Amino acid sequence: MSQPIRVTVFNEFHHENHYEPARRIYPDGIHKVIAAYLKEQQYFVWTATQDQPDHGLTDEVLDNTDVLVWWSHILVDGFRDDIVEKIHRRVLDGMGFIVLHSGTQSKIFKKLMGTSCAIKWREADEKERIWIVQPNHPIVDGVPEYFELPEEEMYGEFFDVPPPEEVVMISWFQGGEVFRSGITYTRGKGKVFVFRPGHESLPTYYNPHVLRVISNSVRWAAPVAGTPAPVFGNAQPLEALPQKKS
Amino acid sequence: MSQPIRVTVFNEFHHENHYEPARRIYPDGIHKVIAAYLKEQQYFVWTATQDQPDHGLTDEVLDNTDVLVWWSHILVDGFRDDIVEKIHRRVLDGMGFIVLHSGTQSKIFKKLMGTSCAIKWREADEKERIWIVQPNHPIVDGVPEYFELPEEEMYGEFFDVPPPEEVVMISWFQGGEVFRSGITYTRGKGKVFVFRPGHESLPTYYNPHVLRVISNSVRWAAPVAGTPAPVFGNAQPLEALPQKKS
Amino acid sequence: MSQPIRVTVFNEFHHENHYEPARRIYPDGIHKVIAAYLKEQQYFVWTATQDQPDHGLTDEVLDNTDVLVWWSHILVDGFRDDIVEKIHRRVLDGMGFIVLHSGTQSKIFKKLMGTSCAIKWREADEKERIWIVQPNHPIVDGVPEYFELPEEEMYGEFFDVPPPEEVVMISWFQGGEVFRSGITYTRGKGKVFVFRPGHESLPTYYNPHVLRVISNSVRWAAPVAGTPAPVFGNAQPLEALPQKKS
Amino acid sequence: MSQPIRVTVFNEFHHENHYEPARRIYPDGIHKVIAAYLKEQQYFVWTATQDQPDHGLTDEVLDNTDVLVWWSHILVDGFRDDIVEKIHRRVLDGMGFIVLHSGTQSKIFKKLMGTSCAIKWREADEKERIWIVQPNHPIVDGVPEYFELPEEEMYGEFFDVPPPEEVVMISWFQGGEVFRSGITYTRGKGKVFVFRPGHESLPTYYNPHVLRVISNSVRWAAPVAGTPAPVFGNAQPLEALPQKKS
Repeated sequence: MSQPIRVTVFNEFHHENHYEPARRIYPDGIHKVIAAYLKEQQYFVWTATQDQPDHGLTDEVLDNTDVLVWWSHILVDGFRDDIVEKIHRRVLDGMGFIVLHSGTQSKIFKKLMGTSCAIKWREADEKERIWIVQPNHPIVDGVPEYFELPEEEMYGEFFDVPPPEEVVMISWFQGGEVFRSGITYTRGKGKVFVFRPGHESLPTYYNPHVLRVISNSVRWAAPVAGTPAPVFGNAQPLEALPQKKS
Repeated sequence: MSQPIRVTVFNEFHHENHYEPARRIYPDGIHKVIAAYLKEQQYFVWTATQDQPDHGLTDEVLDNTDVLVWWSHILVDGFRDDIVEKIHRRVLDGMGFIVLHSGTQSKIFKKLMGTSCAIKWREADEKERIWIVQPNHPIVDGVPEYFELPEEEMYGEFFDVPPPEEVVMISWFQGGEVFRSGITYTRGKGKVFVFRPGHESLPTYYNPHVLRVISNSVRWAAPVAGTPAPVFGNAQPLEALPQKKS
Repeated sequence: MSQPIRVTVFNEFHHENHYEPARRIYPDGIHKVIAAYLKEQQYFVWTATQDQPDHGLTDEVLDNTDVLVWWSHILVDGFRDDIVEKIHRRVLDGMGFIVLHSGTQSKIFKKLMGTSCAIKWREADEKERIWIVQPNHPIVDGVPEYFELPEEEMYGEFFDVPPPEEVVMISWFQGGEVFRSGITYTRGKGKVFVFRPGHESLPTYYNPHVLRVISNSVRWAAPVAGTPAPVFGNAQPLEALPQKKS
Repeated sequence: MSQPIRVTVFNEFHHENHYEPARRIYPDGIHKVIAAYLKEQQYFVWTATQDQPDHGLTDEVLDNTDVLVWWSHILVDGFRDDIVEKIHRRVLDGMGFIVLHSGTQSKIFKKLMGTSCAIKWREADEKERIWIVQPNHPIVDGVPEYFELPEEEMYGEFFDVPPPEEVVMISWFQGGEVFRSGITYTRGKGKVFVFRPGHESLPTYYNPHVLRVISNSVRWAAPVAGTPAPVFGNAQPLEALPQKKS
């Protein structure tokens, strides 16, 4: 009997406290809506918010997190660099990392990508249609060939990230743009999934397909227990070498 | 409670019947050794050999196969083209496909790759050391950072396959060559894993790491039940289009 | 002083002869329009059509072709298999291959991909907007961040090809679909570029961006003269091996 | 007539000044040997060393550099962070970046990769044989299917970098390890090539194949002048949107 995957949902939790349209839709915060769904999927779920000590991401929390789900937006400059370093270390060691929407503008995501992660954007509550372009991927298990979000913020290309290892979804926007909306990366032993929706003042995180994708991605990104720990540094030869010249 | 993954192990089963050094090591055939191990892993396992009617790969067998494990070598020209087509269709529809050793020279593998799949080779019973270069991959769950096969046939680069989607393992050979020995591909909804060892007259398929990799790859390649079935062909617009000019 | 790149533009050349809307726009055939532009770019340009002996792709033509540009549609079943084999061999040996629009449904392209290459499609003369998602790629040299084709046939995902090595362009369609419209592959020593537009009865191949992309892709796909010829087959060891047991 | 590519060769230039075995082989520094070869190839070549003001990488130098070739080793901690930032910005804007040997342990390379870039290593002056595994790549133009360095430092897997976009070369080491020795990445508009050799006290940078690869990689990594400058930030819709609800 395997242990349940331990998920921590981090949320900046600013808009929901300071901006009425966000509070109306997510009165307890985006993290609570996502966490509630993940609990139903039999994950062990924890939440963290930026205003907590250590942003809620203490060593104990991080050490007991298999997959970190991340939403942030405008408080990124105030996020402590030492905790960025700890998250980074944990990802390289195998913690899965699921980056939602504007979380793509966070310090930790930029550090993992090595690029600016800049995008086009527009808040016009326009229609987004998300197409699946890798239909055998476990992240889209149970998701139809496309799904629609009637109102979303637009993100448009060029999205300044490294070419993804997998492009699982591409968004069509009513205003004329496209976006690589479901993409994967490997960093060290950690798996990273970027999922483009959803805006803080729109009910995207109640959409069943969006929730399903997040849940699938947690399972996909969970560390594989038995994979070898990399061995680095000075190494003895495995084959006899000729006598070195003195 | 999910159903067990249904694996069919196909083996050409020629050397073991006609070549004493192969018979000595695999008296019942390579397929029986692999199948026995996979059964212990709780898969539902079937076997097929080339001399059976329809090469043992009848419609019924193929329709009930989640993952096909494949070993072939010198009888590739005699393999029926219509069955190649059926396997190909099944892979595109989601059947996993695990290609072992000289199975890389089969019609079905060449058809899936679109290239010659040519290699360098040498039968000198030399040492092979297989290094893991993607240590978080589920296919190497439980495998150390490298493992050795004291005697193997050499396969050397350039291996004429498309650049792999993932390079999970690279082999070092005593005679001086290297080889991309564990590589993955997607074809349609099907996942393909190529695993370089083992020669028909060497006890490679008793090696616990080799067996573990095969077993892991079966789990990795098994179709994801709920992923969307692609819809092809003429499509009605999802958005209102302007009146077409007459 | 290097020799000019030798391009052969193959066209099925059926619609322009039998379908008035195509004839009106391309009275001498799509191949002539593309060839005329490529000549201006200082390539050495040849053309071939399906009704010619050997479909215009004799051994002499193929042996003297650095890059083959390909347009085909409804006569694919009538294309000779032996010539498919010759083109395939030439691509593996390094000939570049540029596949336009419905050329994705040809025997040769399917053979190179190993998949069905199936698509969604719609002839509604709708707007297509092609976005560049790899802005440093030589294939988009001189092309703006997006360009529009006011009327095009729609191709929609899922496009059943292997995950591309590079996704250079993504199309937005007015009717609500997206498509990976500029994608690259390696097959043997050959480079393959797939470029989605243009429909036979629309003036797409007069669009300066479309022509520029085709011309750039020819330069990108041209074989690199000095790269090593792969050596296949039985190989002597490069390092001393221990005496083999008798 | 196009302008020559402007290359800056950066070298830490410490070992050659402080360690006799390095000085004996590279009395004027590794950078001078590489620069001399690149000048013969008709590049416009500049050099920079860490002890110079701004490490020799002033704004003027960086602004006039198309491709930066980089060698560093033990002084990485002393490299100024503000200059790391400037190089990073330039790479994202399109400057090519060629990382040699222990340059993989530099701040700038780690920043571009998002990983630890950790390796195995051994200084035993053992044989390295570098195999070409993507034989059509412009970086291996003129290079045989493999070449040998009779004495080199060993680097072994796992190399903690993101899965490369292209694996062009793989090294075989006499002591039993393998390494992905020629690999490529895209970061923003910049192209990155990592080339594993050569140790500071061995004559690797006089090897004609090594020099050829470096020269080829400079041409490959040079920015494509006409590719679109990404446009980021708030964007007006390209299609009419329905009236937003108030």
